[in-house]
Amino acid sequence: MKNQSIGKPLYDRVVVKPLEADTKTKGGILLPDTAKEKPQIGEVVAVGEGKLLDSGSVVPLKVKAGDKVLYGKYSGNEFTTKDGEELLIIKEEDILMIL
Amino acid sequence: MKNQSIGKPLYDRVVVKPLEADTKTKGGILLPDTAKEKPQIGEVVAVGEGKLLDSGSVVPLKVKAGDKVLYGKYSGNEFTTKDGEELLIIKEEDILMIL
Amino acid sequence: MKNQSIGKPLYDRVVVKPLEADTKTKGGILLPDTAKEKPQIGEVVAVGEGKLLDSGSVVPLKVKAGDKVLYGKYSGNEFTTKDGEELLIIKEEDILMIL
Amino acid sequence: MKNQSIGKPLYDRVVVKPLEADTKTKGGILLPDTAKEKPQIGEVVAVGEGKLLDSGSVVPLKVKAGDKVLYGKYSGNEFTTKDGEELLIIKEEDILMIL
Amino acid sequence: MKNQSIGKPLYDRVVVKPLEADTKTKGGILLPDTAKEKPQIGEVVAVGEGKLLDSGSVVPLKVKAGDKVLYGKYSGNEFTTKDGEELLIIKEEDILMIL
Amino acid sequence: MKNQSIGKPLYDRVVVKPLEADTKTKGGILLPDTAKEKPQIGEVVAVGEGKLLDSGSVVPLKVKAGDKVLYGKYSGNEFTTKDGEELLIIKEEDILMIL
Amino acid sequence: MKNQSIGKPLYDRVVVKPLEADTKTKGGILLPDTAKEKPQIGEVVAVGEGKLLDSGSVVPLKVKAGDKVLYGKYSGNEFTTKDGEELLIIKEEDILMIL
Repeated sequence: MKNQSIGKPLYDRVVVKPLEADTKTKGGILLPDTAKEKPQIGEVVAVGEGKLLDSGSVVPLKVKAGDKVLYGKYSGNEFTTKDGEELLIIKEEDILMIL
Repeated sequence: MKNQSIGKPLYDRVVVKPLEADTKTKGGILLPDTAKEKPQIGEVVAVGEGKLLDSGSVVPLKVKAGDKVLYGKYSGNEFTTKDGEELLIIKEEDILMIL
Repeated sequence: MKNQSIGKPLYDRVVVKPLEADTKTKGGILLPDTAKEKPQIGEVVAVGEGKLLDSGSVVPLKVKAGDKVLYGKYSGNEFTTKDGEELLIIKEEDILMIL
Repeated sequence: MKNQSIGKPLYDRVVVKPLEADTKTKGGILLPDTAKEKPQIGEVVAVGEGKLLDSGSVVPLKVKAGDKVLYGKYSGNEFTTKDGEELLIIKEEDILMIL
Repeated sequence: MKNQSIGKPLYDRVVVKPLEADTKTKGGILLPDTAKEKPQIGEVVAVGEGKLLDSGSVVPLKVKAGDKVLYGKYSGNEFTTKDGEELLIIKEEDILMIL
Repeated sequence: MKNQSIGKPLYDRVVVKPLEADTKTKGGILLPDTAKEKPQIGEVVAVGEGKLLDSGSVVPLKVKAGDKVLYGKYSGNEFTTKDGEELLIIKEEDILMIL
Repeated sequence: MKNQSIGKPLYDRVVVKPLEADTKTKGGILLPDTAKEKPQIGEVVAVGEGKLLDSGSVVPLKVKAGDKVLYGKYSGNEFTTKDGEELLIIKEEDILMIL
């Protein structure tokens, strides 16, 4: 995966590569049910500069490229790269947990 | 339960392990009705760093791992660990009370 | 009623014990109609530390344990203690008046 | 009417006693139509300490006990005192005008 | 019309007397269509002290008694004085233009 | 068109005269489709003093009388002057672009 | 394309020229699916001065003319120039990523 070629998400957006349910995480292993409505596991591919606050300043995101994350299944927008890679762009607030 | 292996919830999110209705709390004993819509008892397994404020600062959460809590039944996202443990990730604002 | 054993409501939440309609208040006596949609009388059993403001500070609540209060009938979440006591947890903003 | 015995409304809430449509006001006389959806006239019986601002401070209300006011007909919660007096508890923002 | 006897609107509320569609304004003449949904012309009869800001301070209104104004037809609450005068109470933000 | 006689829009409101689709703009020429839902071209006739901020201060508008603008077709309120001129009053935030 | 003749978007609005799905981006190549609901690729043609904050100040946008961007398919307002060019005007917050 050529992360640097994906592009730069804006502000608090994050590009995530959805992972198969049997993906192992660093510590315990999270295995989302096959049931609908369950959150999904993915790997962060690219992150924006940070969230734009009402004050006009920007706070950096907590997640970074390479992090495995749990996120809400129906969050964000899907798109496909020329290599056929299916990616997802979501807001950091739709990420539930860093695994 | 290997709490440290669950992962790190983001911001004001909290991982809760739902407990059986007959679980005893430290002081009095809360026994939610079996009726629908009633709040549930659970044990906090992991907590985020704190709530992100409009000012960009983060306020630490009041709940901590190990706390028994009462929370709204339909809050949050369920997921299952490889060990078959059913957990829930909710926002601290969906927790009603520390038991 | 063992108030200290009920647990600690979070932030601006308040535990209320609903009272019968014929309960006497300190001064005048409020007797809600039996009609639906009418507010109810209850006694405050436990209160949270205070409301979390956007600034991150916490303002203490106006109500305290022992206060008799008028509150909206359909506010909050009901739960039952092991002693069979039916309690309600609401936000202070759902309390209309201290009696 | 024993105002001091009614209780203390919280924050920006106000207890109002609805008045008959032929009630005279200090100056001109407002006579709401009998048509539905029209505002109503009432007398303020008790007021809260003031509105809680985002900053945590409280601004005192403009209305005070004894004021005759025009308010939206479907605002607030009705309740009845033991003396059979029908009162209404509304937020000050639902009061349109001091008569 | 006895404006001083109408009463005092609260905060950013304004009492308006609806005018006939052929009313002349100071400069050009605005003649709303008879079609529904069109704004209406009225004369300001009384104004509140000003809009209550989140900071707790109050900003005086731009409109004043005597102003002819254009306002949204379905804004506000109608009421009738004893003299049979039909008036309307709206928020200043529902006034589109001073004529 | 007697702009000075139209009246003064309040705060961030702007009076716009809709232009025919073949109107030429200063530079390139924008020709909205005849299709529904497309934005429209108009000329600004009068502008308010500025947008009222939460802080109570007012920021002047970016558009001024004489500007040709693109705006959302279904924004605002239409009205007709005595001269039969059809005008529209919208908020500046409904203006998409200065042409 | 005569960008300087398109006009000036207001505040945080951006004019985008939709690109065909086979457009190459600087690094990797993003090829949105033909499926509905997928985001689209476009080139930024003109940008506003910046987002108006609650404080009254304006923060410049991150995107600039010439950027290739990924944006939500159903965002914004379409319009057509006299040259038959189909353009779109969206808010910067509807842009997901700079490619």
